[in-house]
Amino acid sequence: MRLSARNIIRGKVEKIEKGDVTAVVKVKIETPVVITSVITRESIEDLNLKEGDDAVVVIKSTEVMIGKE
Amino acid sequence: MRLSARNIIRGKVEKIEKGDVTAVVKVKIETPVVITSVITRESIEDLNLKEGDDAVVVIKSTEVMIGKE
Amino acid sequence: MRLSARNIIRGKVEKIEKGDVTAVVKVKIETPVVITSVITRESIEDLNLKEGDDAVVVIKSTEVMIGKE
Amino acid sequence: MRLSARNIIRGKVEKIEKGDVTAVVKVKIETPVVITSVITRESIEDLNLKEGDDAVVVIKSTEVMIGKE
Amino acid sequence: MRLSARNIIRGKVEKIEKGDVTAVVKVKIETPVVITSVITRESIEDLNLKEGDDAVVVIKSTEVMIGKE
Amino acid sequence: MRLSARNIIRGKVEKIEKGDVTAVVKVKIETPVVITSVITRESIEDLNLKEGDDAVVVIKSTEVMIGKE
Repeated sequence: MRLSARNIIRGKVEKIEKGDVTAVVKVKIETPVVITSVITRESIEDLNLKEGDDAVVVIKSTEVMIGKE
Repeated sequence: MRLSARNIIRGKVEKIEKGDVTAVVKVKIETPVVITSVITRESIEDLNLKEGDDAVVVIKSTEVMIGKE
Repeated sequence: MRLSARNIIRGKVEKIEKGDVTAVVKVKIETPVVITSVITRESIEDLNLKEGDDAVVVIKSTEVMIGKE
Repeated sequence: MRLSARNIIRGKVEKIEKGDVTAVVKVKIETPVVITSVITRESIEDLNLKEGDDAVVVIKSTEVMIGKE
Repeated sequence: MRLSARNIIRGKVEKIEKGDVTAVVKVKIETPVVITSVITRESIEDLNLKEGDDAVVVIKSTEVMIGKE
Repeated sequence: MRLSARNIIRGKVEKIEKGDVTAVVKVKIETPVVITSVITRESIEDLNLKEGDDAVVVIKSTEVMIGKE
């Protein structure tokens, strides 16, 4: 299956911590990746974000899915 | 500011495509990272996910924030 | 209350599994529904998605709210 | 690829409306489905949600991904 | 309709900026509110977050729905 | 660090309830705030949402991050 999700990144499961109904999974990514973000145009201007800038990608863990091929 | 978000990854803005109220930003990450995910315990069992497994991280672009230091 | 959320679907609670602070709820939907998605235009082109195509809707459980009338 | 996402639902693309960087996609689902949700235990108690209850599933369009097999 | 969402906050629409398929809406909230968050236990410990601490709530605009009564 | 997230709101931690891998955090906000939302243009029209309208902001707890300065 091909997905609309722009961020599909291969890695290796490093750690699984199981809770009662949820679990935390940590995946090690070794290779360089490009991460795609959709943000408001207002925030681009507010951060004065330009191509070539150093930037930080921030993702809440509950937004991250895991797949297995 | 320190954040609860488990995924805070440094990179460089590669491309910005501005729409009218939203924009797409692509950030190149060069260094290895560990990505943390919270999923249901049921999905761990359904995928038979174990430490050491090859896995794929899937993140929808609308879930990705950008920061600037 | 009317909501901006485009996906408001009636069903019946089939199963509730309670954890300590979160819970998993399964809702059975019997009637046909139309599900609305907002994705990047880039992904439309990348998937070559066209009206009439068979497609799969993918939603992470943590993104699903429950209401009661 | 198998996914941790609990909600993977087959349908047919009914309508695509393209914006400049994002697009709205509507997918018609004809068959009954079970939708899985993760909510706080507090909200279960606040709604007095029980198995067998009529309930409404609410999903913001920006949380819905599309796949193609 | 009552919702599982823990954060339901009354205000007044201050500004609407329409794009082609999405729009940005700003809502002014005048009264004190309590905002509920679900984060990993690991992040609680990592931030050394305790009751009484000054804290900052961070919410991506794409995660905010609007309702009308 | 400055963030693209439009909603960055200062408050005080009122309550923390720890589960095994996740936790619920409640933050009291005392001062008026403006909350920014990105929704579909279709929903603006469907709700007939206009500047000056009373409105309700709805946010699922799993979408709320916490920061500490």
